[in-house]
Amino acid sequence: MITVALDTMGSDAGPGPLVEGAAALSREDGPVQILLVGHGPTLTSLLNTQKYDPARLAIVHAADSIGMDELPAEALEKKPECSVAVAARLVASGDAQAMVSAGNTGAVILAASRQFKRLPGVKRAALAAVYPTEQRRGPRQDPFALLLDVGATLECGPEELLGFAVMGSAYSQVISDIERPRVALLSNGAEPHKGTPAIVEAHHRLTKLQGLNFVGNVEGLDIPRGSVDVIVCEGFLGNVMLKMLEGVAEVVSGLAKDAYANSVLWKLGLTMLSQQLRQIRTMTDWKQYGGAPLLGLDHVVIKAHGRSNARATRNAIKVAAKAVERGLCEKIAQGIAPLEGAGS
Amino acid sequence: MITVALDTMGSDAGPGPLVEGAAALSREDGPVQILLVGHGPTLTSLLNTQKYDPARLAIVHAADSIGMDELPAEALEKKPECSVAVAARLVASGDAQAMVSAGNTGAVILAASRQFKRLPGVKRAALAAVYPTEQRRGPRQDPFALLLDVGATLECGPEELLGFAVMGSAYSQVISDIERPRVALLSNGAEPHKGTPAIVEAHHRLTKLQGLNFVGNVEGLDIPRGSVDVIVCEGFLGNVMLKMLEGVAEVVSGLAKDAYANSVLWKLGLTMLSQQLRQIRTMTDWKQYGGAPLLGLDHVVIKAHGRSNARATRNAIKVAAKAVERGLCEKIAQGIAPLEGAGS
Repeated sequence: MITVALDTMGSDAGPGPLVEGAAALSREDGPVQILLVGHGPTLTSLLNTQKYDPARLAIVHAADSIGMDELPAEALEKKPECSVAVAARLVASGDAQAMVSAGNTGAVILAASRQFKRLPGVKRAALAAVYPTEQRRGPRQDPFALLLDVGATLECGPEELLGFAVMGSAYSQVISDIERPRVALLSNGAEPHKGTPAIVEAHHRLTKLQGLNFVGNVEGLDIPRGSVDVIVCEGFLGNVMLKMLEGVAEVVSGLAKDAYANSVLWKLGLTMLSQQLRQIRTMTDWKQYGGAPLLGLDHVVIKAHGRSNARATRNAIKVAAKAVERGLCEKIAQGIAPLEGAGS
Repeated sequence: MITVALDTMGSDAGPGPLVEGAAALSREDGPVQILLVGHGPTLTSLLNTQKYDPARLAIVHAADSIGMDELPAEALEKKPECSVAVAARLVASGDAQAMVSAGNTGAVILAASRQFKRLPGVKRAALAAVYPTEQRRGPRQDPFALLLDVGATLECGPEELLGFAVMGSAYSQVISDIERPRVALLSNGAEPHKGTPAIVEAHHRLTKLQGLNFVGNVEGLDIPRGSVDVIVCEGFLGNVMLKMLEGVAEVVSGLAKDAYANSVLWKLGLTMLSQQLRQIRTMTDWKQYGGAPLLGLDHVVIKAHGRSNARATRNAIKVAAKAVERGLCEKIAQGIAPLEGAGS
């Protein structure tokens, strides 16, 4: 049995959808137990409205919580009993094997970084955005690609980028069953000499790295195209890109909303266009999907979207359990080992 | 009369659309003369298929040209008589006042940087992408916003970012008639402390800069939203962002193409959805619009899209002439002057 600590506080819609997703998952077959971490009385009354398996779902009270707009370091300092810190401690103490949170991203990264250890050889942890593409990959025809880092770092040197490449590849193998994930560096041109000095150096070293399927540089175009499985960049760039795609998604959502309005003509038009519309929406609708793994620590951490609904919550918990079951952290540690002492 | 040197070689569709656009413009009222720079015999025969005003359109032969995939420095070295170099020399010698090219971007930047001088106080020239947004701005309800730099630089310090802010603001005033363009830094959060050290420092100094309407940091979301008039970032980031938007445009173009297929039902559906579709296409269809100005040199340079059609060419030449007529370079020089010696 794998136990996942779910931080239920601080997401955009409150603990409701998170409790609902966890309750639903507790009734499914599978080796997962869930600890709902948050304000005890609130969680108890929410849970009373749900069907759930009490053998696989328990509440752990946390006296405090951190809001989306709070400064992470300051908030964690002021509120040692906040839900995200309690969840991280449950994992650090061995009462749970993984944590999932839909709260303040900076606080999740900071709480995890303080409670967990970096894996040997990992310079920096990275937050990886999982996003659906047109392309299908692996034996299960998985549509997901990985972009990392998207916010655990700002600027990165070649060592960090190498680490991200290895960690992203390991995640893609473990979670998407892709045997040799195609890994690329995000740059301003495909040629090896294109990019910042850190990227050029990382490119050079990645081409010589055994055991990794490095396919070279890709450009911004390749993100929506989904031409590779893992795209590596520094956190500042990844974060700005991700936010821009969300902006594009806003416009597309506006279209889809109007398109589903109550009119026969609308619906007729929509039916005609539905395949293409789905394609665009899928590409940009981050919140339909589980969450973003924080990679490089000795425990599994999944940051679910702040607007996660019950289904997204359930998916995030399942992914966390799968990552534990399949030894994600061990796999990353194995991949990182050859980097140590790998010269330029 | 303002003379624009149009480099007709090296674009994706060859000189045809460029000659067509120039010929059309020569027949319109306006103070513009055009020098078509390229392979003489080819241009002569193309011109023979067009109606044009011979008093306002002339051919300048260039023996060579640079392809899209050539390395700029190497190609300019090997081919001193290539069309882009000849066009730049026409401007440097005073035979023309501005240049427009739809060829190899790197070669345009390099040829211009070698033939023209940087304006006093300008640390680095910047290529600015002009892109249409949902928002309208200025007295003419102009939909265009500016993102710079998108490829003349890679990494930038605070001084360069300050320069880009001033140059972008000047361009927006001169070309879009916006009195006080809203200028922002692209970062991973709105707060002044967010971003790389260069951005944090630039933010600090921009808040103290007189005569510039600096509104703070914006995030990736704000690019498609069009919430400000000028967005400033380093060239590597800008280039990757621009390419990603082109990738999104690919998917949207696929949708629009299917949507215009020959079926009554398609058309019916499309009519229903047309406003929203137009909105998305407009946002991402870079090639409908004039071109990207290269800012910071003592002459006007417009880099038109490699796939420019006749209309885009005509627009690019008109913008170049307008920039000369309204004293863009002088305006930039005036804006840059206060930066000199402006402390941190």
